[in-house]
Amino acid sequence: MTALELSADPVELTAALVDVPSVSGTEDTLADMVETALRDLGHLEVVRSGNTVLARTDLGLPSRVVLAGHLDTVPINDNLPLRRTGTGDDLVLHGLGSVDMKGGDAVLLHLAATVREPRHDLTFVFYDCEEIEADRNGLGRIQRDLPDWLRGDLAIVGEPSNAVVEAGCQGTMRIEVRTKGVRAHTARAWMGENAIHALAEPLRRLAEYEPRHVEIDGCHYREGLQAVGIKGGVSGNVVPDDAVLTVNHRFAPDRDSAAAEAHLREVFDGYDIVVTDFAEGALPGLQAPVAAEFVRAAGGEPVAKLGWTDVARFAALGMAAVNFGPGDPTLAHTQQENLPAHQVHQCAEVLRRFLS
Amino acid sequence: MTALELSADPVELTAALVDVPSVSGTEDTLADMVETALRDLGHLEVVRSGNTVLARTDLGLPSRVVLAGHLDTVPINDNLPLRRTGTGDDLVLHGLGSVDMKGGDAVLLHLAATVREPRHDLTFVFYDCEEIEADRNGLGRIQRDLPDWLRGDLAIVGEPSNAVVEAGCQGTMRIEVRTKGVRAHTARAWMGENAIHALAEPLRRLAEYEPRHVEIDGCHYREGLQAVGIKGGVSGNVVPDDAVLTVNHRFAPDRDSAAAEAHLREVFDGYDIVVTDFAEGALPGLQAPVAAEFVRAAGGEPVAKLGWTDVARFAALGMAAVNFGPGDPTLAHTQQENLPAHQVHQCAEVLRRFLS
Repeated sequence: MTALELSADPVELTAALVDVPSVSGTEDTLADMVETALRDLGHLEVVRSGNTVLARTDLGLPSRVVLAGHLDTVPINDNLPLRRTGTGDDLVLHGLGSVDMKGGDAVLLHLAATVREPRHDLTFVFYDCEEIEADRNGLGRIQRDLPDWLRGDLAIVGEPSNAVVEAGCQGTMRIEVRTKGVRAHTARAWMGENAIHALAEPLRRLAEYEPRHVEIDGCHYREGLQAVGIKGGVSGNVVPDDAVLTVNHRFAPDRDSAAAEAHLREVFDGYDIVVTDFAEGALPGLQAPVAAEFVRAAGGEPVAKLGWTDVARFAALGMAAVNFGPGDPTLAHTQQENLPAHQVHQCAEVLRRFLS
Repeated sequence: MTALELSADPVELTAALVDVPSVSGTEDTLADMVETALRDLGHLEVVRSGNTVLARTDLGLPSRVVLAGHLDTVPINDNLPLRRTGTGDDLVLHGLGSVDMKGGDAVLLHLAATVREPRHDLTFVFYDCEEIEADRNGLGRIQRDLPDWLRGDLAIVGEPSNAVVEAGCQGTMRIEVRTKGVRAHTARAWMGENAIHALAEPLRRLAEYEPRHVEIDGCHYREGLQAVGIKGGVSGNVVPDDAVLTVNHRFAPDRDSAAAEAHLREVFDGYDIVVTDFAEGALPGLQAPVAAEFVRAAGGEPVAKLGWTDVARFAALGMAAVNFGPGDPTLAHTQQENLPAHQVHQCAEVLRRFLS
């Protein structure tokens, strides 16, 4: 086990992290290395919980920033070890986890080592099992077991955002719209009632639905309402008595899940709907002083985060929370994941400017 | 192997046939018994082809009636051996194949033995593998290998029809209506195109479709157009790029499959449709003199056969073809299959009157 050199170029640190495989559930080697490196710095309080590593300053400063990144990746897909193309500013790192999110982890680890006199107290959270079932998520476990480790005035999650501040996140809800009918032989169809035909009207409403556009703190959220599954049928000569349409709603963070559900019940008025899954969105909270300061340091217009990320867990604690990390999020989970080195430097510089 | 007593009460003959299991593909024992019994009669030319047994008179009469029944059943479902309830006219036979169609077979075998001076030459066809894939159907094999054994002026298939003449049959066609879209993350749905939403319009057309009612030779056919399957979806957060609706069309025998397909292409104009399966219907052909005579002998109004049966194979040869047999067809393939004895006697009497 080679020691991680946290003070070195964060691009080289990214490369080192990528080359330690850490598919969800197997983060122990990487977590050991991160724990050791953080302890060796000497100026941080370090706690280990499972394969999550926590570290913080306790300088008695009036504000605290939480910086979080997950250590795990999706499964290996013939995309390890790391490959490099280009040089200098055009260097690109290719490999599993380069984008999602060892580039972000490297930036945060580098700052932990090199920002010794921060303007805010700092908490670092390197957690496990983000890429799998929500109930195994390391951040969720810390929230239950060590909740004060997550408290602060601003949370920055280093998920890939193309080095742009992505604020808050939209909520997500999945529902099933179920129609019932009466089975019959198709040669005597009038004796039955076709549950698939009964989906014509809910599908019409979906197809004609106009999603809201919502502006909050200068961030533009675009909602969505999309069928993600449809299923029905008994056999080739039977009028089906059951059909189900699965719909995914993405809602701007001015609505909570109860408001989103009420809206869906209105859209599908007259139909039997069941909520099967949801996650609250997160308001950007960019009016909070520390958050506003970070947006200024990042020097750009913040944009809305449309997908759901773990920032919502921090927002649920009443904190401002943003995504900010190197890499193109649309490359996450693809075999071709690759990370331009200059974005790693850019993120490290912005955060150094903000924290120093 | 007990010999079958063809001259005895056809209800007892039904009971004997039910108690010789003959699930599709395993009809050999029953076919052996039928062959032996028919040969023992002495007045019929008998031919064996696989597990199909053919027998005919050759009296040089000006007309010929073909009487056909399949020997096989669907799989045993804890409904053998035969059970009896009631007595006399209220006797009911319970068990696999009682309705579909050993009651009909028993009637035909009984007539083979007891109508020694028929008004028409007679051909009996007891065939295998009706309940499984069409390409193993014994009647199809005879049509290919021994086609002249199926020729005649009228075919009577002893499928259960509640002892009512069911004439001709409707055709059936299955199509797939496929919609295409573009995948995207549901949080950025405007970058994609939802293939499930695109099924809204085909489903609306289905739900509003008014099927034809068609009268032919006094038989009332009711067409149908029914979704029998629907499928689409990639995962819970992906705008799906592919969806498919499976539709079953039942069409009256005034249309052939080409006309039915043209009609469906009109109904789903603008959509990609593929015919996956079809079977031609059969005109009742009740104006043919021998057919008209049979309808008179049956003493009742003929009704349209709405499902598809092997009568269509005879109709395709240009013959009048009807279903006529004891038993309620809606009990076929159910565990509770049961046959009122009086319908067996009724069918035997009608056919004896017609043939003698």
